[in-house]
Amino acid sequence: MFITFEGIDGSGKSTQARLLSDHLIEAGHAVVLTREPGGSPGAEQIRRLVLEGDPDRWSAETEILLFTAARRDHLERTILPALGSGKVVISDRFADSTRMYQGLSRGDLRATVDRLHDMMIGCEPDLTFIIDMDPAEGLSRARARNGSEERFEDFGEDLQCRMRAGFLALAKEFSHRCHVIDGARCARAVAADVAAIADAEFA
Amino acid sequence: MFITFEGIDGSGKSTQARLLSDHLIEAGHAVVLTREPGGSPGAEQIRRLVLEGDPDRWSAETEILLFTAARRDHLERTILPALGSGKVVISDRFADSTRMYQGLSRGDLRATVDRLHDMMIGCEPDLTFIIDMDPAEGLSRARARNGSEERFEDFGEDLQCRMRAGFLALAKEFSHRCHVIDGARCARAVAADVAAIADAEFA
Repeated sequence: MFITFEGIDGSGKSTQARLLSDHLIEAGHAVVLTREPGGSPGAEQIRRLVLEGDPDRWSAETEILLFTAARRDHLERTILPALGSGKVVISDRFADSTRMYQGLSRGDLRATVDRLHDMMIGCEPDLTFIIDMDPAEGLSRARARNGSEERFEDFGEDLQCRMRAGFLALAKEFSHRCHVIDGARCARAVAADVAAIADAEFA
Repeated sequence: MFITFEGIDGSGKSTQARLLSDHLIEAGHAVVLTREPGGSPGAEQIRRLVLEGDPDRWSAETEILLFTAARRDHLERTILPALGSGKVVISDRFADSTRMYQGLSRGDLRATVDRLHDMMIGCEPDLTFIIDMDPAEGLSRARARNGSEERFEDFGEDLQCRMRAGFLALAKEFSHRCHVIDGARCARAVAADVAAIADAEFA
């Protein structure tokens, strides 16, 4: 079972991924909790190349290639071996984030993202939680986190609004695996919804 | 005019690229001499990711994605701006090296290399010099260079033999732009052949 968490910055994805991991471990599952970009030693090095330094240092096209390289490494070195040994894999972001961030920031690039994904990744999650959140609230939560390295947060509220709409559209496009969860509640209430859906998948 | 040098390790590509650059500058051309992987600040960082460390740290697929990301950056930041301002660009290696090293080391990957190239690069040199050399001679020349960072040289003579045959086949595949030059002579004699062909292109 391969589970991903997606959503705008500050939506609480990472917290919810960790809480679901705790819940599944308590239920007796072996769980690998991972994240993108990154999730394997090589992919973490690519993450640093992409996220550090001047935001304009890479074009959108180069960025897509770097994210796809990192994802391929993450898939080969972390995700597939864990799934192969019967573990549950929970990833904080996966391909849907590239579909959104690169595909939406430059509308003509969504087709490129999809073709690269089909050619070099070819793997989708079994279950995706899209943690939905008002962008102004998400942005203020993201900014409140000290030492955040995610430069995408600098893009501001307008982008976050388009991302939110994009994620909701994505949930319809991949409705067989995507569940939209209202993230504007306390973490415990959100986690209860997520756990119930995951439990139903395992039942 | 976009000119590339290709060939096995130790064939004298880099020397010949430099000598052609000197020749064209003397003839009054503005020349940008560059190399791959690398050739722009971002691509040089990707180069270090690919060439340093354990040779098995990346799969062939991830390596192709990283080389293509570096090439896209090199193209956007160095090659196209120089061509756009009327300069001659001479690159020590370009896409043909990926066609060979990744496409030949895993035969099933040549189609992937080509599709990625068409999708993300879409640019071929006007003129390519393939410096041909006996692999044993090339390998001993490459090993004689102190401090070489090119880990591909570790792959040994068997790979170099397959690469030589591959480059000769490539010259037939792209016969409109490729010239095979006998590299087993003194650098001055090789350079004279290269210069004569380049001069004819500019005439």
